[in-house]
Amino acid sequence: MKYKNIGVLFFLMTGTISNAQTSQSIQIKNNIQQNEFQIMESFKELLAIPNIAADPVGIEHNANWIANYMQSKGIQKVQLLRDDNTQTPPVVYGEVITPGVTETVIFYAHYDGQPVDSSKWAKGLHPFKPSLYSNLISDGGLPLSWPTKELGFDLQSRIYGRGASDDKAGVMAIINAYATLVQLHIKPTINIKFFFEGEEEAGSPHLSALLKNHKSLLASDIWVICDGPVHQSGKKQIVYGVRGDTHMEITVFGPKRPLHSGHYGNWVLNPAMELARLLASMKNEKGEVTVAGFYDDVTPLTISEKEALANIPSVDAQLKNELGVLATERNIPLNDALQFPSLNVNGIQSAGVGKYSANVIPTKAIASIDLRLVKGNDWRRQQEKVINHIKAQGFFVTNKEPTDEQRKQNNKICMVVVDDNSYNAQKTSMDNPFAKRIAKVMQLGLGSNPVLLPTVGGSLPLFVFEQELNTAPITVPIANHDNNQHAENENIKLKNFFEGIQIFTSIMTLTK
Amino acid sequence: MKYKNIGVLFFLMTGTISNAQTSQSIQIKNNIQQNEFQIMESFKELLAIPNIAADPVGIEHNANWIANYMQSKGIQKVQLLRDDNTQTPPVVYGEVITPGVTETVIFYAHYDGQPVDSSKWAKGLHPFKPSLYSNLISDGGLPLSWPTKELGFDLQSRIYGRGASDDKAGVMAIINAYATLVQLHIKPTINIKFFFEGEEEAGSPHLSALLKNHKSLLASDIWVICDGPVHQSGKKQIVYGVRGDTHMEITVFGPKRPLHSGHYGNWVLNPAMELARLLASMKNEKGEVTVAGFYDDVTPLTISEKEALANIPSVDAQLKNELGVLATERNIPLNDALQFPSLNVNGIQSAGVGKYSANVIPTKAIASIDLRLVKGNDWRRQQEKVINHIKAQGFFVTNKEPTDEQRKQNNKICMVVVDDNSYNAQKTSMDNPFAKRIAKVMQLGLGSNPVLLPTVGGSLPLFVFEQELNTAPITVPIANHDNNQHAENENIKLKNFFEGIQIFTSIMTLTK
Repeated sequence: MKYKNIGVLFFLMTGTISNAQTSQSIQIKNNIQQNEFQIMESFKELLAIPNIAADPVGIEHNANWIANYMQSKGIQKVQLLRDDNTQTPPVVYGEVITPGVTETVIFYAHYDGQPVDSSKWAKGLHPFKPSLYSNLISDGGLPLSWPTKELGFDLQSRIYGRGASDDKAGVMAIINAYATLVQLHIKPTINIKFFFEGEEEAGSPHLSALLKNHKSLLASDIWVICDGPVHQSGKKQIVYGVRGDTHMEITVFGPKRPLHSGHYGNWVLNPAMELARLLASMKNEKGEVTVAGFYDDVTPLTISEKEALANIPSVDAQLKNELGVLATERNIPLNDALQFPSLNVNGIQSAGVGKYSANVIPTKAIASIDLRLVKGNDWRRQQEKVINHIKAQGFFVTNKEPTDEQRKQNNKICMVVVDDNSYNAQKTSMDNPFAKRIAKVMQLGLGSNPVLLPTVGGSLPLFVFEQELNTAPITVPIANHDNNQHAENENIKLKNFFEGIQIFTSIMTLTK
Repeated sequence: MKYKNIGVLFFLMTGTISNAQTSQSIQIKNNIQQNEFQIMESFKELLAIPNIAADPVGIEHNANWIANYMQSKGIQKVQLLRDDNTQTPPVVYGEVITPGVTETVIFYAHYDGQPVDSSKWAKGLHPFKPSLYSNLISDGGLPLSWPTKELGFDLQSRIYGRGASDDKAGVMAIINAYATLVQLHIKPTINIKFFFEGEEEAGSPHLSALLKNHKSLLASDIWVICDGPVHQSGKKQIVYGVRGDTHMEITVFGPKRPLHSGHYGNWVLNPAMELARLLASMKNEKGEVTVAGFYDDVTPLTISEKEALANIPSVDAQLKNELGVLATERNIPLNDALQFPSLNVNGIQSAGVGKYSANVIPTKAIASIDLRLVKGNDWRRQQEKVINHIKAQGFFVTNKEPTDEQRKQNNKICMVVVDDNSYNAQKTSMDNPFAKRIAKVMQLGLGSNPVLLPTVGGSLPLFVFEQELNTAPITVPIANHDNNQHAENENIKLKNFFEGIQIFTSIMTLTK
């Protein structure tokens, strides 16, 4: 298969683009194209280094590789930043300060990946042996030889491997955007700082302290986070916010020992049924959470946000088809639904089902729920509302296994264990002047408007940037939406990867 | 510890007993006492033979041991009965026909046991290495040497091992009841037939065919089933019925692949929440099943049954204390609750909880439920009512994984897999003349009234005796109620075991 230069055609054919910009875009595009085999070789090298946050040796190996790679591209002040604890997976930092330039953008990506279970990956794949396929394997993609100039490749093909999309693609795209400018002698219009984290998938436990400790080094006008997927429509996007997140584990107790469901069934209270009743009480048939005050505190959407929502291409029908679902919970579009705080059952478990089913009244029933939060919600307050709701259903609520005394005094007992490792939503104003300029330059680079998303439904602790540095973050993802992030068979579409490099060159040549 | 002859004192001190009966009871009691070490040795031998229904070698070994033991006690026509399939675990059969005697009682017990997981048994115990403890281990019981005449033993001590109570104790008690009569030259007043099954714990899959094939050999006036525990009050009991039983596995479907609970939570329907709502819809706050017509078809209790229920000693407070529960489901006594058909959740499962919890919308949620049936209910009709209820909640009901087409056409989809290996309740009339005479003779032998239980809550396929042989069964259990039947640490209290032998001698010397 020969290389099909869909990208350049696309840039040339669409949109109203200024002549200067078009010429520079083509120059950049061509340069990326000239270097693509070399970039892919390096990307392959990086993907082959195991990057699980729990594996310090692998993490150090990644960090050193990236630091060397940055130095080879002429990035300055390359260094490994750590929390006080020297065992912490380091941030790989570097910068390019251009004389006479006053504005600074800091680019974030992370090089650590989600844990892997190799046995779950498709046959022929290994999380740390990156390989190329002609398409999504589940859509019939076939294994390809690693491309050479002679072989060429197709932009629809995909690299499979842990971190291919989440988020080593981000690291490589950002570094190579700068390298492209260097090769073309294009002067960045902003000072560039590089910030590559090594424990994002472990919940960024040291990020906050690290930002605080390196406040002046990390000074910038805006954080540009490269993480997550592009819009499901395939369009690039800028994301201005994330929902907050907190978890609760709810356990309803029954008899102290499992009871024969014949001899004691319909006499003792069955905790599985009581849990079902409790969960059912939390949402009505319309999908609305019925926990008192659940939707209070929500900061209303701004006019810009409402406009942006109205402009998002609808992917609801496509998604429903993909997922095999007909009805949705609240009968509203996906992106409208994500503007609300949510209550979701992540899992339930009581005794066994299927071949593990026995004729018992279980001793307990457990539900794991997560609460997503929007701007205005406070995670502790949101947890408290749910706890009050449980109490209002007649439960004695404790955070430990109930004592015999508590069992003697209470009809219904529920243990609630809350996750203190939680955080609130974060939103950068869509009227943020820097964010507006980035949106504009992306539109120029892409030749079409990116989707502007007021918030994604998922959560990241982005609040730390505002909290520690008083700087707003926006997210500019590059990965295809079907990248299997966090799961087996993680992959990146080459088109997305190379367009990602182009996007970051646009931001690095930001105009007023 | 020396032998404490609590039993004899008890017999002498209580109740109004005819002189002849008293004298014969004491004679029998003394004979059992003389032979107890020898009986225990044999019991130990039998308990050491693994008896899992799935282990044909162990099963044959048990059957042969029992057949030999029966022959050694002078029982006639000892033989192994099988279904046509020679691989079937055999019934060990024998009989004692006494000239001039016209009435026949057939005694049933089973020698196979529930599967074992040795690792779950208390330290020092092994399911097939029977051992003696001074008391219930969980109440501080200590290991004892196997008793000799010099060492003696306490009637409160317990033998631990698989089958100790369920139901090799029944086999040994029945055989040794007859052996006692032989030694004392007491002529049985009934013809005795012995029927020891070898696959009860596997659901008696060949029992029905076997009864049909040996109809004339198995002719009797009544079946006396020795299985299960005595009343929780410690009193002996006669049980006239069992509830029927059927199972259903209910699966509610969500999206075809697990979805990120942030990006898609509160947009797609969550199957765990839908299952919770469905289960909650099946019972009201008063514990009543709200499935339409669920309590229809129930045959009203007879006057004798109502009287019997009123006379059952209440163990509710004791049980609540033991189980650490305060409220009950319907706020009615245990034995009243068991007169109703029931719907019980045996287990629920959807994605993971605790350390297996992830930020997902699960793809499905499963509940395993069992329906207990009382006289008048039909298991197919009862299943149908539940299926209709599920449909009435807006679900499309299927018995297979839904197709893409079904997913496109239905908002909510539920797979219901019903267990066809189900059966209805069985009840022997409390006015059955034979059962009445057995109750009377037990009262004479015990010196106090046994508890007369119209039904237990549990289920056994006792309907087959009526169906195949047109003969009523009653159950006369001997095991202590805290025997851990079906679980780890199964045990029998020696007092129960030896009193069991005495009880069966009473029935074998039944008077008009």
